Amino acid sequence: MNKKRYTSRLDIKNGTVDMTHGSGGRAMAQLIEELFISNLDNELLRQGNDQAAFDVEKGRMVMSVDGHVISPLFFPGGDIGSLSVHGTVNDVAMSGAKPLYLSAGFILEEGFPLADLKRIVESMAAAANLAGVPVVTGDTKVVEKGKGDGVFITTTGIGVVPEGVNISGDLARPGDKIIVSGSMGDHGVAIMSKRENLTFETTIESDSQALHDLIAEMVQAVPTIHCLRDPTRGGLASTLNEMAQQSNVGMKLREEDIPIKPEVHAACELLGLDPLYVANEGKLIAICSADDADKLLAVMRAHPKGEDASIIGDVIEDEHNFIQMETSFGGSRIVDWLAGEQLPRIC
Amino acid sequence: MNKKRYTSRLDIKNGTVDMTHGSGGRAMAQLIEELFISNLDNELLRQGNDQAAFDVEKGRMVMSVDGHVISPLFFPGGDIGSLSVHGTVNDVAMSGAKPLYLSAGFILEEGFPLADLKRIVESMAAAANLAGVPVVTGDTKVVEKGKGDGVFITTTGIGVVPEGVNISGDLARPGDKIIVSGSMGDHGVAIMSKRENLTFETTIESDSQALHDLIAEMVQAVPTIHCLRDPTRGGLASTLNEMAQQSNVGMKLREEDIPIKPEVHAACELLGLDPLYVANEGKLIAICSADDADKLLAVMRAHPKGEDASIIGDVIEDEHNFIQMETSFGGSRIVDWLAGEQLPRIC
Repeated sequence: MNKKRYTSRLDIKNGTVDMTHGSGGRAMAQLIEELFISNLDNELLRQGNDQAAFDVEKGRMVMSVDGHVISPLFFPGGDIGSLSVHGTVNDVAMSGAKPLYLSAGFILEEGFPLADLKRIVESMAAAANLAGVPVVTGDTKVVEKGKGDGVFITTTGIGVVPEGVNISGDLARPGDKIIVSGSMGDHGVAIMSKRENLTFETTIESDSQALHDLIAEMVQAVPTIHCLRDPTRGGLASTLNEMAQQSNVGMKLREEDIPIKPEVHAACELLGLDPLYVANEGKLIAICSADDADKLLAVMRAHPKGEDASIIGDVIEDEHNFIQMETSFGGSRIVDWLAGEQLPRIC
Repeated sequence: MNKKRYTSRLDIKNGTVDMTHGSGGRAMAQLIEELFISNLDNELLRQGNDQAAFDVEKGRMVMSVDGHVISPLFFPGGDIGSLSVHGTVNDVAMSGAKPLYLSAGFILEEGFPLADLKRIVESMAAAANLAGVPVVTGDTKVVEKGKGDGVFITTTGIGVVPEGVNISGDLARPGDKIIVSGSMGDHGVAIMSKRENLTFETTIESDSQALHDLIAEMVQAVPTIHCLRDPTRGGLASTLNEMAQQSNVGMKLREEDIPIKPEVHAACELLGLDPLYVANEGKLIAICSADDADKLLAVMRAHPKGEDASIIGDVIEDEHNFIQMETSFGGSRIVDWLAGEQLPRIC
């Protein structure tokens, strides 16, 4: 294969993306070979066709897509490369599925430093390796300077659902318990702090991580989990509203049981944000019957990615699909959908 | 489901995309419901989860991704919506697979007219319906004005390969015949003419179309086809070079057998383009053994999408993997990779 058909190697240290890298010609082939394939390396990607081929068993499969336009590209706890793996692995896993493979479409802006692109692809490769979910097929496009913003990455994932598992946002029932896997708001606050150049005593890091290993244990222990969803854009509040509407139920939360780190609370006050609306990239919401809740909570807490899991409330009957919350001060409020725009380009 | 939770319907006629449409909140939910789901409507998309779930049979599956950043968004013979369906359906089908499902990730620029977005989504829906390959899961992100360019669409497709079919770019063998399904260069010339505001006596239209139905008949007639690939970016020349290198062979073409429309030829002369390097979006290259070539050609010509199919040359032994071409004037030249950038943002 390696014919040394390029006169010289890609200048990753000083080079930048130019329009020829999206042309379909020799420059694009070199970029793909020396930067993408060499880092994301796996057997399927190396097939070198416009598609990856693999064997599947008969069963239920899921497919999910997530575009990533986060700004800044690098942030405490991650970057757009690792995020684009975690985001889609999680969307696949929220069906209870074992994620199998990812595709990745890159849209690059002319002038973007190849060194930064390399960092991003390396981070993507590390995240994919750690998750055991390889990027098996990819595509690269280049747009003129001023027509993009560095790098956008759209990933699609597929996975297989274990037999007997049926998890969906429309399956919440009155009486069910609502559990979150850990503290809310870390990702969004990490991004906003970076954007606003805020420094705190301790750096707030994004919680960006793949949750499929946690989910696999949850599903094995309680195959009858009703709903799973990750509270990304719009945060816990918007995601619960989505599910309440989908299931045609209401919910009642207890504010004091919603885990939020003190430094995230403090940063939110400073930034004028409500942590319930702030994006997470490594947390999940589970809804299950009251009978299963303690068992599920125990399994989650026994896993490093769920050690701060908490039962935050109950599903109730409500034709208006309202999310109510008992506040820490003993009051009560409605937690509505995010109405405007709290955090642009948070993922 | 329909709770009329929006105070008013989306103003598609006069409205534009704003940052709230990517926020994860109510405005995004409304955009997705009233513009995306209502047009792309299908049972899987209506599951309303962050992933689509479906049953698959045991077998060989393929996955392929294609980002679309074409400019202009609307062009003679198509638009970015239909193109984003055709491009990925074709990439999946070039393995001999029957395409099953698509995912679509939209990256929208703030200020983009909703009326244009609606046209694009309608066109996407029409293309998906015609192809019988639904968009089953999607994602929408919004970037600030000046950080994108209207609309980018990244689609991923999956499909199943019929048993016994094994098509790959590394399977060309000396003695094989090279066939193209029709005229070369139509898509790229249609785009460039539009960009340059050129008018000809007849409008040159993009050949953008889904080829999986043609391929299904080809594979059924000749299950032993060695290679299939669509000559998109970089055109026929770059795609043949890719395959020659992958298979470690050379190729010998006859210029006079390569179908090119007279008006495409004329436009290329005017624009200073070489039609062999101009992108196609509805044509394929097939490579098969000499024994199968006449049968395959006949099947292709009997199909409306292959009626101008032509055997354009032979695979030969060549350790340098050169593509040689006998010119119409009896000379000979090397058809190299596209070296620079001929047509930016052609797909």
